[in-house]
Amino acid sequence: MKPPICEKLGIEFPIFAFSHCRDVVAAVSRAGGFGVLGALAFSPDQLEIELAWIDEHVDGRPYGVDLAIPMKYLGKGGGDDALPTNLEKLIPEAHWQFVDALLDKHGIPPLPADLEGKAAKAAGLNVDLESRAQIETALKHPLVKMFVNALGPPPADIIDACHDAGVLVGALCGSPRHAQKQVEAGVDVVVAQGTEAGGHCGEISTMVLIPQVVDVVGPDVPVLAAGGIGGGRQMAAALALGAQGVWTGSIWLTVAEADTHETAVQNLLEAKSTDTVRSRAMTGKPARQLRSAWTEAWEDPENPDPLPMPLQGLIYNKAARRFTRTKNKELNGWPVGQIVGAMDRVRPTQEVVLSMVEEWVEATERLGSLLADD
Amino acid sequence: MKPPICEKLGIEFPIFAFSHCRDVVAAVSRAGGFGVLGALAFSPDQLEIELAWIDEHVDGRPYGVDLAIPMKYLGKGGGDDALPTNLEKLIPEAHWQFVDALLDKHGIPPLPADLEGKAAKAAGLNVDLESRAQIETALKHPLVKMFVNALGPPPADIIDACHDAGVLVGALCGSPRHAQKQVEAGVDVVVAQGTEAGGHCGEISTMVLIPQVVDVVGPDVPVLAAGGIGGGRQMAAALALGAQGVWTGSIWLTVAEADTHETAVQNLLEAKSTDTVRSRAMTGKPARQLRSAWTEAWEDPENPDPLPMPLQGLIYNKAARRFTRTKNKELNGWPVGQIVGAMDRVRPTQEVVLSMVEEWVEATERLGSLLADD
Repeated sequence: MKPPICEKLGIEFPIFAFSHCRDVVAAVSRAGGFGVLGALAFSPDQLEIELAWIDEHVDGRPYGVDLAIPMKYLGKGGGDDALPTNLEKLIPEAHWQFVDALLDKHGIPPLPADLEGKAAKAAGLNVDLESRAQIETALKHPLVKMFVNALGPPPADIIDACHDAGVLVGALCGSPRHAQKQVEAGVDVVVAQGTEAGGHCGEISTMVLIPQVVDVVGPDVPVLAAGGIGGGRQMAAALALGAQGVWTGSIWLTVAEADTHETAVQNLLEAKSTDTVRSRAMTGKPARQLRSAWTEAWEDPENPDPLPMPLQGLIYNKAARRFTRTKNKELNGWPVGQIVGAMDRVRPTQEVVLSMVEEWVEATERLGSLLADD
Repeated sequence: MKPPICEKLGIEFPIFAFSHCRDVVAAVSRAGGFGVLGALAFSPDQLEIELAWIDEHVDGRPYGVDLAIPMKYLGKGGGDDALPTNLEKLIPEAHWQFVDALLDKHGIPPLPADLEGKAAKAAGLNVDLESRAQIETALKHPLVKMFVNALGPPPADIIDACHDAGVLVGALCGSPRHAQKQVEAGVDVVVAQGTEAGGHCGEISTMVLIPQVVDVVGPDVPVLAAGGIGGGRQMAAALALGAQGVWTGSIWLTVAEADTHETAVQNLLEAKSTDTVRSRAMTGKPARQLRSAWTEAWEDPENPDPLPMPLQGLIYNKAARRFTRTKNKELNGWPVGQIVGAMDRVRPTQEVVLSMVEEWVEATERLGSLLADD
């Protein structure tokens, strides 16, 4: 008897894999899991190209799309005020001076003039400004069976549009209170994310959070456990806690199919679990990432405080364009969870999925044997 | 087939319960678990009284003793330099002034002159200064089957004395590297403690930490999972991760048998999982505790930084004697893990043990059913 979420989505294993890379998404779904494309960075036109590619490479298996639609943010929630060029006016000059001095100290040259002029992409804000058009694009693809919002419950009209198209709506949360609000807003699948997770995360650990969320949403709402899950023992643990499946992200950054920047892959494979930090330095909201000269600088009480989302994302985006270009290792952090300590080599996606399943089965049998008569 | 640690200790369930209260220790062992007395605060003579009481109330079941023996600390590691009166000289006057101002702000009166004069007890340092005599006392009690050190591996002569008496030696750790060092030092049982745990804890979550520790120490060394464990689903999860048992502490603070201070019990039952903080404000080392006016004040960059262990413990001890006496709720934090959010009522110890076992069995069966044919 598979968990109900497997039946609902028509998948073999309750392994949900978040990735910005279409190759990884397709490979996970082909292997029997459920790939979810992190589509934040794609314009509606580009998203159409990505999804068409996945459709062709997924052997008819279902997959999902993840966006980051905020309920509200600076710039009065949209319109011209929310354009990066207008938002930039809200950033104090002292912050830019601090960033310039920091990058100078690390020997990072300014961007060439032709790159400098380009407007920051919305993705640099870590929120979506074109979400309705993106959703419209996604819903045209019948293999897209779930839409997940990384910033809590999406607006009601988006939930309705998904439901009309037979698409499940999921949302990430970090506390039982938020889980309850999401379900009240019409969310179908709660992704409960522990503090050990990569990217935006709350304070409560997965071990503590999952039973609390499961109890608050009740037996009819599937909960996926996120944070700290990279292998089959952790998958078995998450299911023991009451989750119907696992939501994974970090482990796909270093698979063979991933298009992660080479400097980042190197840093990720070298990192221990203690090398991550929950910091507002990347997006303005607390997000777990590799500790770097960038996070350290923003933590120093002598320096300016990070600005709220989406302003800090604009600052980070500009700086990251400079230091990524020069392959600087010290400044190059990456959103990743504590599971990074278990990521020590590049493996094919299919192998990661299948070895997770194998270890899950072993752990389940071992657990059962502890209760068997001698 | 029970986990090997159950056979080694002669216990029914692999539930290890840390408590400073002898009533709780005896009740857990009587219920089939393994109570462990946190003996830090007891002089050797007092410890003898406590252990004799447990012997009489434990129905012949085994139990353990936990101390906090540091490998090294300020004051050159012992001798007269380590006496609280001499250590106090190392505390800057500005720290005392800050504490006095803070307590004044909260309307806490000074201690009456007769109490003020009393030397701080070693327990106020959160380290043991009389550990060898304490161990000697403990080893005279044949039902004491395990000694656990809260500050990593104890000195070699203590490990040898325990082994000569047929007593297992356990030690707490927060990273795979420390686990490896402990086993090399002769520790028999590794208590791997996630960041969600109460009291001293590392940064890595239980979900991530346990498989790493299990893999590094190998199959012959029992690992107990600590941090975030308060119910049977969490127990099943911990065993799925590869632990042989669970080490619990926070949940025993509010059982009917506990002698926890009434203001603290009230604060604990009201707290959510987000109401704890990992702070150096209590002992000088990062320890998870209820967020309080005390922790907030020490976090403020405007104020002095906490001093290293054991000096901060001296400061905290003096302040706590003042604000505990007046039942002040704002300043009264307590070492506790994130599981505090699930502690919402006072229950008898036996009921907590047995409901944990019941939920563990249910979770194991549910996990097995996910793999059964439809």
